[in-house]
Amino acid sequence: MSELSSPQAEESPDEAVSEKYLALEQDVREAVWDDDKRWLSRTLKRLHPADAADLLEQLSTDDFSDAVALLGEDLSTEIIIELRDEYREDAVEALPDATVAAVLGELDSDDVTTILEDLEEERREEILKKLAPADRASFEQGLAFDEETAGRLMQREYFAAPELWTVGHAIDHARDNAEELPAEFYAVYVIDPTHHLKGQVPLATLLRTPRDVMLSDIMEDIQSDIRGDMDQEEAAYQFQKYSLASAPVTDGDGRLMGMLTVDDVVDVIQEENTEDLLALSGVNSAEGTDTVLDSVKARAPWLAVNLVTAFIASGIISIFEGTIEQVVQLAILMPVVAALGGNAGSQGLAVAVRAIAEREMDGDASRRAIIRETLTGIANGVIFAVGVAAIAGFWFSSVALAVTIGVAMFATFVWAGFSGVIVPITLRRVGADPAVASSVFVLTLTDIMAFFSFLGLASITLL
Amino acid sequence: MSELSSPQAEESPDEAVSEKYLALEQDVREAVWDDDKRWLSRTLKRLHPADAADLLEQLSTDDFSDAVALLGEDLSTEIIIELRDEYREDAVEALPDATVAAVLGELDSDDVTTILEDLEEERREEILKKLAPADRASFEQGLAFDEETAGRLMQREYFAAPELWTVGHAIDHARDNAEELPAEFYAVYVIDPTHHLKGQVPLATLLRTPRDVMLSDIMEDIQSDIRGDMDQEEAAYQFQKYSLASAPVTDGDGRLMGMLTVDDVVDVIQEENTEDLLALSGVNSAEGTDTVLDSVKARAPWLAVNLVTAFIASGIISIFEGTIEQVVQLAILMPVVAALGGNAGSQGLAVAVRAIAEREMDGDASRRAIIRETLTGIANGVIFAVGVAAIAGFWFSSVALAVTIGVAMFATFVWAGFSGVIVPITLRRVGADPAVASSVFVLTLTDIMAFFSFLGLASITLL
Repeated sequence: MSELSSPQAEESPDEAVSEKYLALEQDVREAVWDDDKRWLSRTLKRLHPADAADLLEQLSTDDFSDAVALLGEDLSTEIIIELRDEYREDAVEALPDATVAAVLGELDSDDVTTILEDLEEERREEILKKLAPADRASFEQGLAFDEETAGRLMQREYFAAPELWTVGHAIDHARDNAEELPAEFYAVYVIDPTHHLKGQVPLATLLRTPRDVMLSDIMEDIQSDIRGDMDQEEAAYQFQKYSLASAPVTDGDGRLMGMLTVDDVVDVIQEENTEDLLALSGVNSAEGTDTVLDSVKARAPWLAVNLVTAFIASGIISIFEGTIEQVVQLAILMPVVAALGGNAGSQGLAVAVRAIAEREMDGDASRRAIIRETLTGIANGVIFAVGVAAIAGFWFSSVALAVTIGVAMFATFVWAGFSGVIVPITLRRVGADPAVASSVFVLTLTDIMAFFSFLGLASITLL
Repeated sequence: MSELSSPQAEESPDEAVSEKYLALEQDVREAVWDDDKRWLSRTLKRLHPADAADLLEQLSTDDFSDAVALLGEDLSTEIIIELRDEYREDAVEALPDATVAAVLGELDSDDVTTILEDLEEERREEILKKLAPADRASFEQGLAFDEETAGRLMQREYFAAPELWTVGHAIDHARDNAEELPAEFYAVYVIDPTHHLKGQVPLATLLRTPRDVMLSDIMEDIQSDIRGDMDQEEAAYQFQKYSLASAPVTDGDGRLMGMLTVDDVVDVIQEENTEDLLALSGVNSAEGTDTVLDSVKARAPWLAVNLVTAFIASGIISIFEGTIEQVVQLAILMPVVAALGGNAGSQGLAVAVRAIAEREMDGDASRRAIIRETLTGIANGVIFAVGVAAIAGFWFSSVALAVTIGVAMFATFVWAGFSGVIVPITLRRVGADPAVASSVFVLTLTDIMAFFSFLGLASITLL
C-alpha cells in the first residue's frame, strides 16, 4: 500500500500524493546531480522494485546513466529486471562485467535470458566466462531458443513430482527443498520416470486435498500445448484462451522443459498490441523510441512508401488536368472524396486487423466479415453520398456537380469497405503480418478510386 | 493436449489437424441443421469448454441461435462463460429463465455478475426472483458496483485467514472447507478480526513452510492497492506493474471484499487495447460488431465529423481558387503534401497514444516527447521536402514550383510532428480519452497547414 502507487500526476484524484511523488522525483534528480549515492540507494531500497524502476525512468537519458554509474552494485537486481527494455539495456551496459555476472547469479533463468540477450555477443562471452561452468551451461540453454519463442520466455525452475507421490509427499518435498523451488509457482507438474508430462495439480487443489491422496488421482489434464520452439504469441493466445496463470513448456517429445508464468505472457500481449497499433499507423516496431534518430528510422521507410503512392495518386489527377482547368471546383472538392473514403477504409481495416489479432477471423468468419464490410460500405456510402452531394450542390449551385460527387463518393465507400477487409486477410494468407503495410495499401486503393471516379465522371458529366 | 488447440487453418503447420478441425466444424453445422441434439451435446462435452465455445462461434448467427435452442440446459455453464460477449448475450437470451437461474447457481460470483449485467433490467428481476434469497442478495452485490470497476470484476469467494493461524491451521482449514473455497486461487489473504487486510501468503510460500510457522511471520506486504470502486483499467495496470496472478480488493476502509484473478485482468487489457486501436481509426468501441447496423452505428459518427473537417479543408482550397485556375499543377500536387503530412502526424499520434496507454508519458517524459516529435518532424521534413521538391521539379520542369512545394512540405512535417503529440497530451489533460478524436484533430490540423502553406506560398511565388 505504498503511497507511491499512483504516479499519474494528472489522473490521480489525490493531489497531495501526486505532489509528494513529484517532489520525490525532484529529490532523486538532485541526488544524481550531487552524486549523493547514499541517499539515492537508501531511497530506492525502501520502495517496491517496480516503483523504484518507475522513478529512475523519469530521469532524462543522461541523468539515468549517471544514476546507474553512481549506484554501481547498489543497483539491485530486482530493480534492473523491472526497468523497461531500453533502460535495462542502458543500465546493463553501464555496469562493470563483474557486477553483471554477480547479478545473474541471483535471478530466475528467464530473467537471466532477458539480460543476456540484450548484450553484445562479445561482452556476453566475457561475462559468461566469469561464471561457474554449471551456471554457464544452464544460462546458455535459454539463449539456444530463437528470439520470441516460448523457450526464450520460460524459466527452467519448476516443481515437478512423480505420479506415484501423494499430496503429503509433495508437501514434504517442497518443505525439504524450499530453496530450490522457484519463488512463485501455481501448480505442481506431474511427470513419469522419463520426464514426460502427465498432468498438473494446481496448488489450490493440493492445499485442500488430504495428505494420503495420490497426485495421479487429483491431477488435471493440461489443456495448453506449449513447446519450446513455439512462437511466444501462440503461447500467449493459449494463456488467454484457457485462463492460465502458468503453463508447462515441453520439447518435441512431450518432455517437461520449463514453465511460463502469466506475468511474462502479459508483457508479450502488450508488445504484440503495441506492434499492431504502431504498424497500422506506419511505424515500425521500435527497438528504442527515445531518440530522434530512432524515431526517424522507425518512420521514414513508410513515409518513403507513401511518397511513391502519393505521386501515383497525383498521376491519376494529372490525367484529368484539362478537366480541372475548366472546372476548378473539382480541385476544391476532390480532397473531400479522398479523405472520407480513406477514413472509411481505415475504419474497416482497424476492425479487421483487431479481429485477426484476437483470432476471430477464422474459417467462415472471414467470409462473413467481407460481406459485412461491403454492406457497411454500401450503407455508409448512401448516407455520405447524399450528404456530400447536398453540401457541394448548394455550395456551387450545380446539380450536375452534386450528382457527380455523390456517385463518386458512393463508389469510393463501397470500394473502401471491401479493400479495408480484403487487404489484411490477403496479407495474412500469404503469411505477412496483416497490420504492417495494410494501411498504405488501403489508402492508396481508396485514393485511386476517389480521384479516378470523381474526375473521370466529371469529365463526362461536366464538360 | 487436445488435438483441437490450433484452429488457425492458415497458420497451423499441421495440415492434418486443421483439416480435422474444419471437418468437425462442418459436422457441428450439420448436426444443428438436422436437430441432432444428442450428437452435438456429446461432442461439446468431450472438448475443453474454451474449445467448445470456439467451435460454436464458428457458426453463423442464425445457426448459433438454433444450436442454443437445440441444446437448452445441455449447454453447459462452462461453455456459456467461455463464449465471447456478443455470443454469450445471445445464448442467455435464447435460454428459458429457469435454465439461466440454474446456471447462475453453479458459477463463481464474478461470472454471475458477467451474465446478470448482460440481461435487460426486467428479465434480470424475473430470474433473481427464482433464486433463494441468500443467493439473490449475494448476486445483487456484484451489480451494486459501476460498470468497468474492479468491484464488478472481482469474485467474492477467496481464502482469508487470521494472523494468528499457523501454516498447519491454514492447510487443515482448506481441507475441511474444500467445497467453499474458490476453484482457483493463488494466495491466502491474512486479515485481522475486523476484516482488515494485513498481508498475503502466496500458496507457493505456504507449501514450502513448516506447519508450525505463523502466517504473520511469512506474510508479504500487498503492493497493489485495488478498491472496489476503482476503474478496471487502473487495476489492470497494477497487475502488470507488480506481476500479479491475483490481488485482493478492499473497500474504502481497507476491509477485504473480494479477489481479482489475472485471467479477468487479461480480458480487460485486451478490451482496452481494442478500444485504443479502434478509436485511433475512428471506430467507436463496439458493443456488437457482427451486424451491418452495428458497424454503421460505430463508424458513421466519426465519418460525420470527418465530413465537416473535409469541407473545412475544401474551404481553404477555395480561397486559392484563382491561383489553381492559373497553375493547375497545384491541384495535381496538393494531395501529396496533405497525404505525407497526414501520415507523419498519424505516426507521431500512434506513438504518443501508445505511450500514454502504457503510462510512459508522465511528468518529464511528456516534455521530452514533445521535443523529440518536433525534432523528428524537422528531420523527416528535411528528407521528404527534398524528395518531394526533386520529383515535382523534374515532373513539371519548374524550380519555383519545386521550392514552393519543398518549403510547404517542410512546414507541414514540423507542424504534423508537433500536433501529433500535443493533441493527445492535451486531450488527456482535460480528462478526455487521448485515443478518441485525436486522429480527426491531427489530420484536420495537418490538412489545413498543407493546403494553406502550399497554395498560399504558390500564390506569392508562382503568380
